[in-house]
Amino acid sequence: MGHDTVRGPVTSTRVQVVEHGRTFERPDRLVTEEPMEIRVRSGTSEPVALAVTMRTPGADFELAAGFLRTEGIIRSRDDFAQLAYCLNGDGTQEYNVVTVDLRVPVDLESRRRGFVANSSCGLCGKQTLDQIEVDCAPLANGPTVARSVLTVLPDRLRAEQAVFDATGGLHAAATFNSEGELRILREDIGRHNALDKVVGHALLTDELPMQESVLLVSGRVSFEIVQKAAVAGIPVLCAVSAPSSLAVAAARRLGQTVVGFLRGDRFVVYTHPHRLDLES
Amino acid sequence: MGHDTVRGPVTSTRVQVVEHGRTFERPDRLVTEEPMEIRVRSGTSEPVALAVTMRTPGADFELAAGFLRTEGIIRSRDDFAQLAYCLNGDGTQEYNVVTVDLRVPVDLESRRRGFVANSSCGLCGKQTLDQIEVDCAPLANGPTVARSVLTVLPDRLRAEQAVFDATGGLHAAATFNSEGELRILREDIGRHNALDKVVGHALLTDELPMQESVLLVSGRVSFEIVQKAAVAGIPVLCAVSAPSSLAVAAARRLGQTVVGFLRGDRFVVYTHPHRLDLES
Repeated sequence: MGHDTVRGPVTSTRVQVVEHGRTFERPDRLVTEEPMEIRVRSGTSEPVALAVTMRTPGADFELAAGFLRTEGIIRSRDDFAQLAYCLNGDGTQEYNVVTVDLRVPVDLESRRRGFVANSSCGLCGKQTLDQIEVDCAPLANGPTVARSVLTVLPDRLRAEQAVFDATGGLHAAATFNSEGELRILREDIGRHNALDKVVGHALLTDELPMQESVLLVSGRVSFEIVQKAAVAGIPVLCAVSAPSSLAVAAARRLGQTVVGFLRGDRFVVYTHPHRLDLES
Repeated sequence: MGHDTVRGPVTSTRVQVVEHGRTFERPDRLVTEEPMEIRVRSGTSEPVALAVTMRTPGADFELAAGFLRTEGIIRSRDDFAQLAYCLNGDGTQEYNVVTVDLRVPVDLESRRRGFVANSSCGLCGKQTLDQIEVDCAPLANGPTVARSVLTVLPDRLRAEQAVFDATGGLHAAATFNSEGELRILREDIGRHNALDKVVGHALLTDELPMQESVLLVSGRVSFEIVQKAAVAGIPVLCAVSAPSSLAVAAARRLGQTVVGFLRGDRFVVYTHPHRLDLES
């Protein structure tokens, strides 16, 4: 139980298992969690640290690109010139820092609003909400998804979740087409990161907006998941667990279909059922 | 499916349930998610917004106090004069903004490091880690906990999880004494918030450090959960699910006992088993 070996998304360790009153030691695998700093640089200025996220290594450039898109900092692939790992003094790469060279100016001051003095108390609740909301185009009508397609998605997600199987410690986000075929699957210790990786992949391969896609997330649905999916143009959002009140309110307003508790042949529809064919 | 009614931690809505090919509409309950802004004020200066967290309303002052403690901004109950909801222009309370009047100076500039330009690239990984680590006193030896006590904790937690039962959408954090008696239980849509509420309660009732406590969290264990628990002096941390690599590494360094996958009569010990009596 002394020293662990990191190999990308999985870290090897030794543990004691206690079972039916017996104790034994064995090797085990943990999901890797490491901080990643996202820096942006406009023109020849020095890079500016924008955010630190605790993430599972892998698809780091997708994560950085997806984060910048779903947070509203960039809008398309053309808004940045390159993504790169930071270089250490000895020329080796620093895998926990990604720098994005932007072609567009970024209003960093507005990103710091949460840390800036503000005394206009009467509007404070609203200003907070302003701060957490990202501009989002109206969602397309999108596909019609059959009940029989929805109910097979969790098994298809689970069948491909390699790191979860090894560690039991990961969130997943995956997109499917309206026939239920898996398109992109990403895993991460952070549920927002898994979705940002999916969105970042689509951004880097010029597949945004994902207006024909059905998104499935392995856990619960928070406001931020709804918002990130909507910014990526995803019209149908499914989850294995429950949505929050603000997630449902945001999806209702944004025109997004939300399905929760998708398990076996049962699910719950929270918003905009018009995209679902519940008869077939 | 049009308008929801919020009552504290639970929000009422209407949903369509699809089950065995049949569809019916019924009322449902969602866990409430709302943003809460934490502001701090030193002396007569204007309040400064420090953080926005998406939280489940309830125990808001505990959440603010716990957050300030586990983020290292305050150290004791004496460091602040009062906690209050912000007042709107019409004199009503704004329940999504909590202002903390500090008796100690707070170095807000250092809290903004993540947003400040930084070009010393070779050390960047280290600086990131510096930023996410909070000063923490060494953990006490703490209690010895019997195997038979550990294995009953999840049932005791679940029996008291009122909001989870209603919505299926909540994380919980609870402290127990070494005999397995429940002390403090808090629920929140954010796992960090549930723990911050527990720590905040202990701070407000002068029970920090919680060096005789066993903490149980309902989900997974990230680095931040280990760190927040360690800052609160909690020597034994148990979870129903998996810890991450960085959680295990931090607990090993901080001297904290971590138990995961605590289910039925089985669990896994990741660090510092000396506080566990596995024979009884």
